[in-house]
Parts: sequence; C-alpha cells; structure tokens
Amino acid sequence: MALLVQKFGGTSVGSIERIEAVAERVIKARQCGHQVVVVLSAMAGETNRLLGLAKQIDTIPTPRELDVLLAAGEQVSIALLAMVLNKRGYSAISLTADQVVIHTDNNFNNATIHEVETQNMTTLLGQGDIVVVAGFQGRDIDGNITTLGRGGSDTTAVAIASALNADECQIFTDVDGVYSTDPRIVPSAARLDVIHFDYMTCMARLGAKVLQLQSVEYACQHRVPLRVLSSFEEGQGTLVNFDVMSNQNIIGVALQRQQVLVNITLPATVINEQLDLYGLTAWDLSTDSSDEISQIVISNDDLARLRLVFDSKMRHIGMVSILSLIGKDIQQHLESIQMVLQEAGITVHTYQGDKKCLSLLINEDDHLAAVDLIHEKFVVDGQCLGNLPHLAVS
Amino acid sequence: MALLVQKFGGTSVGSIERIEAVAERVIKARQCGHQVVVVLSAMAGETNRLLGLAKQIDTIPTPRELDVLLAAGEQVSIALLAMVLNKRGYSAISLTADQVVIHTDNNFNNATIHEVETQNMTTLLGQGDIVVVAGFQGRDIDGNITTLGRGGSDTTAVAIASALNADECQIFTDVDGVYSTDPRIVPSAARLDVIHFDYMTCMARLGAKVLQLQSVEYACQHRVPLRVLSSFEEGQGTLVNFDVMSNQNIIGVALQRQQVLVNITLPATVINEQLDLYGLTAWDLSTDSSDEISQIVISNDDLARLRLVFDSKMRHIGMVSILSLIGKDIQQHLESIQMVLQEAGITVHTYQGDKKCLSLLINEDDHLAAVDLIHEKFVVDGQCLGNLPHLAVS
Repeated sequence: MALLVQKFGGTSVGSIERIEAVAERVIKARQCGHQVVVVLSAMAGETNRLLGLAKQIDTIPTPRELDVLLAAGEQVSIALLAMVLNKRGYSAISLTADQVVIHTDNNFNNATIHEVETQNMTTLLGQGDIVVVAGFQGRDIDGNITTLGRGGSDTTAVAIASALNADECQIFTDVDGVYSTDPRIVPSAARLDVIHFDYMTCMARLGAKVLQLQSVEYACQHRVPLRVLSSFEEGQGTLVNFDVMSNQNIIGVALQRQQVLVNITLPATVINEQLDLYGLTAWDLSTDSSDEISQIVISNDDLARLRLVFDSKMRHIGMVSILSLIGKDIQQHLESIQMVLQEAGITVHTYQGDKKCLSLLINEDDHLAAVDLIHEKFVVDGQCLGNLPHLAVS
Repeated sequence: MALLVQKFGGTSVGSIERIEAVAERVIKARQCGHQVVVVLSAMAGETNRLLGLAKQIDTIPTPRELDVLLAAGEQVSIALLAMVLNKRGYSAISLTADQVVIHTDNNFNNATIHEVETQNMTTLLGQGDIVVVAGFQGRDIDGNITTLGRGGSDTTAVAIASALNADECQIFTDVDGVYSTDPRIVPSAARLDVIHFDYMTCMARLGAKVLQLQSVEYACQHRVPLRVLSSFEEGQGTLVNFDVMSNQNIIGVALQRQQVLVNITLPATVINEQLDLYGLTAWDLSTDSSDEISQIVISNDDLARLRLVFDSKMRHIGMVSILSLIGKDIQQHLESIQMVLQEAGITVHTYQGDKKCLSLLINEDDHLAAVDLIHEKFVVDGQCLGNLPHLAVS
C-alpha cells in the first residue's frame, strides 16, 4: 500500500463527464489499496471567467479580494469530485486550503507555501477516506485567503506530498509524460520513462511546458518523486526522480518562442539590478558591462512589465527564439551542433549554458526547422552521440 | 453615527453593473458617518448553476459537499463588491462565514446559526473598513462549511445585526417595502411605513414573499429592527419593529397559491405525527381526528416529499388557494368578509385563524378576484372598518 498524491488540472475537470473520468483514475488507485489525496485545479475556463469579472471592475483589482474570488474556482471542483466519488460508493471528503491547513505568506496572487498541516488529512486517510484538496490556494497567518499564482495547483500537490511523505506525487495532464521535445511540434519526440531532477529542472526552466518550474524545484528540494501521467490514457508516464540512470547524453530539446530582443540605453549592471528588483528574468547579451547601450532577450509575456521599468530607455529590436539542448556535458557537442545548424542555413546569434544545458539564440522564423533538425540529429538518430536504445517512441 | 447591517439579494448583485449600484448605496450610508456591514447573496443564477452541476452527478448530492459547492457562490459576490468599494476609495474587506466566524450546527443544506463571533468585524469596523460578509453560509464545530438553506442570507444579516447590536438590519430587495398585499397582483396595494413584528410574522408565514419567515422570527426573537428597502430606488421602505402603533385594523392580505388538497386514508392523528416527523406543514381539514380518511392542504412544493411519506395512501384531489387577512382581532370581521365573497360568487370552503390572522380556503381559480376584492373592501376602502388614513398608496 502506497500513499499517492494525484493532481488533476483544469482540463481534466472541465466538465462533469471529465470529473467522472478523474474519479475512475482515483478509484483505480484506491482499489489497488493505495491511500489517495487528490489535488484539483478549477474547472477549465472558470479562473478566466472569474478574472474577467474582476477586470470589469479594475485593471488591477485589490490583490486580497482577487484571491477570495479566484479561490472559489477550486472550491467548486473539489466538491463535485467528492460528490462523484461518494455516489460511486467511495467515501470522499473535500478540503479547502483553509481546512487542510495550507499556510502561506501574504503575498496575494503569488503566495509561497510555508507549511502544510497534515493532521486533518491523516485522520481522514486513516479512516479510509479519499481526501480531495483545493489546489492553488492557501491562507496567511491572519486567516486571509491567498493564491499561489497560475499553475499553483502543481505546487500544492508537491507540498502536500512532501508534508505527508507520500510515495509519489502524480501530475495528471493532457500529455502522457515528459517528452524529448514538444510532441506537438516534433512528431518524432519520444516519451521519457525516467528523467533526473537536474535535467527536468533545466527542461522546465528552458521552455518545456509539461511541468511548472516552481513545482519541479519544490519537489527536487523536498525530494518528492514526481510522475507525469495522462488524464485520458493509461500508461506509466514519466518518473522524475534522483536515482535515475540514463544512458543517453542528450535528454531533450526545449524551445522558448516569442522572445524579444531589446536594446536599453543603460549599462548592463544597472539593468540587471532593476530586473532583479522586479523579478524579471532576461538573457543579458552584453559583452562589456560598462557599455552605454545593452542588449537583452526577454519573454514577450514580460514586455509590458519591462516597459514600466525602463520606459523610453528601451527599444524593441525584434523577435527571436531560444533553442536549448539538455544533457550530460552538453557543451562538448557545441561545435557539431553549430555545424549542423550552419549547414541548414540557420544562424546562431549567440549561446550560453552550463554543464547540463546549452541555449542558442536563433531567429524566430527558424524555430521550427531548428528544433526539428536538432532533435532528429542529436536525440532520435543520436548519430553524433551513439545509439539511445530506450528512447524509442512509445 | 449608527451601525447598519445592509443585506442585498442575488438580483441586486446579479451583474457588475448591479454590484456598482449596491456600492453606491453602501457608500451613501458610509458618507452619512455610519459603520456598515454588508451581507450578500450569490449573484442571481449562480446558485442554480452550481446546483445544476451537482444534479448532473446525483439527484441527492452528498449534503456536506453540496454546501462546499454552493458556498462558492457568495465568495464570488463578496470579493467583487469589496473590489468595487476599494476602487472607489472606500476601504473594504470581504469575509466568508468561516472568517467571521459564523457558527452553525452541522445540519448540512439547512443549518441553524448558533453564534456569530464579533471580534473580526468589530476590529475592521473600528479601523474604518466596510465589512462585506458572505450570507447563507456558516461553519460547524468541526470546521465543515454549512449553508442555511435558500434565502438564508436574510438570516445571516439578522444574526450579524443581533450579534453586533446594530441599530438596524436593512434588507434591500426588488420591492421598496412591505405592502398591504402583493403589488404585482393588486395594483392598489400600499406600502406600509411601519409594521409590528407580530403582524410581519403572520404575513411571512401566510405567503408574503418580501421577507423570509425564518429571518423575521429570528429578528423578532433577538429584537433586531428590520427595514425593507428597494435596491434600485431611494425611499424609506418599511420598518419592522416592536414599538409600532398602527391605527388600522386590517394590516394586509396574504395569498398562498399552488396549494394542494389531498385525501389520505389514515386518521388525522397519525398523519400529523408523520408530518411533524418530516418537518412538513399542512392545514388539517379533518373534523373528526379518528376518521379513516383525512383531508389536508399542503403546498405543491411539498407534494413530492408528502408522496415519499404516504405513498399509495394519499390521493391528490385538486388545487386550492389560501387567502389570509392579517390584523387586530381579525376574527370579528369574519362574517362581513364571508358576505363580500359570497356576493361575488366566491366559495369559502373553510377557514381557520387566531386573533391576528384569518385564513380562508378558496378555489385556485378564484384567487385573483378574491384578493383584489378583499384588499379593496377591507384595506383600501376600509369601508367595513373605518378609514385607514396612513395607508394611502405611496
């Protein structure tokens, strides 16, 4: 008998029919004799609907009240799943974050979990109940409702798994595991059976959408084994863990699209200070940190915030993509990677990286060709690196 | 400076535009120097939408989980109103029942308030905040979310007003006060400036929809002055209180439509025991309590539950209406009332009542003519009872 935490996202609970399917997955685990804590997001579309109401009132609604509003979304989905489970004869109890209790700081809209109390969950699990917890939310020391920011349900699941010392935290999503690259772009992308936390952290940081960086880091830090599974299909998914041996050198290829090249008429040292202050992440392209004009690459999603900081000092130059290879001693392959791209007429403007990852700045227009080519040559064929036997397409 | 509790129902908060209008009313009271606690229902339609989701799962969803689900509705409306007030520069804080704390029993879906803690509200009011509380909900001793049943927001408002020793509990609704009869049926219905709790209780019990019986009884018991006001128009509304002098004899006419006449092949004593057991209210028409067949009148809304109790022993005879007159020593007018109805060809099957009310059983088809006639003759004209000067139509 294991203790499992199973997290299902908004799409997985987007309708009563979908919630019935989630119940099937939960019941299957229960029938195997496992204790189960389920963590849910709000039904797909609900968070946006609530946010839409708030935006009718104010472009920046009161942060405290926004959290009260948004937390209602998960309250609906947990109640509905508990009803379905009860209807099918499996005793289930829903708990809001306040009922768990999940303690956070009071950084409304983007709170950080400090502690998860286990007593209520342990009592319920002990009496055979399935516990259904609202993801994404918490309470601060004054009893205010907080939320963890978008995608925070993954973090809730990991934090609960850590607190309960669960055997596995299973993240159910719309793909059946972690792939060597985005399977929607590259059809030959292969599902990984296992991946080491170090590489998964790189993948998430460098553009893989399947797991949120914050929750991977939290799981890594608290040594919680993660498994990515499909909500809709059977399968073993991908296990993210520490004691994982991999016989391939290059694990995967990640892509960050919609990146913006920006010139700022300030020295790089000043820019980096400001970026840190506002929690913005950018790739600094400056060669000399005392130059009067600096160049950075930043996600298009952060452009509006960047404008608030640098205003007229910044000039938007163009769109680029960042292609990253993740694997062991990846830097040693730099030359052959550059050669392959050059032969295909794809310009690499610059690169950066460390032992586990190598990021290349390319033109936005080249992203499809580049990811396809690099994945084919360095992951599937492995022709520069020897065969990669267990990476066969699942 | 007074302390006011203002309650707004679902229609009053049915859209962002409506919530903005509610904010206007609240701000007006605040500008007069009053401290204000606002109690809100869920946005119109929201409770039904949530109930619809639950009914897709089960005809009788898990009561505990139904309360978790439905309580999300008020959480949305309180957050939105607090945002609007903050946007307009009035500091406002929303509180769920759990944050207040509103203690109830654990009778899910129909819980009773035991106690309202005042400390959180008093602190916030003391620092100048407008406090916006979720109506309809509570928490039991184990921290479970409960709800008070439909219309429970009125009860929340009254309970908070009582706990805070508020000067007035103001119920904002879609009519501008308590009328001498339903103004949607009888255009000459007149708004009452004041009404004594005793008569208001009769009105609510006998069909007046403007105030819920439970909340009137609660307010009466805890001696909380109630005022019924329009959400949409200015006006003084109707004050329900104790030290109220009325110089008219007949205060109003109430109507209960959609009543069902039922024969049950059991003695009345047995039937009444069963009705008590299931919390059903009926008008027992039996003349001899040992008769093998009894006849009762029950609301059509309760018919399904009645069938569950008496099954094949009951037979549905027909639809009737109950017309009730409320006022001082009302029984003394029985003869003239019967005469007026008889002259108009309206049959009175039977009647019952006490010092403050008189109820007549009439055919369903006669209800419009009867209420119009009785209201005209005994309330507006007051011709059988002397003039009723301050009942002029507002």
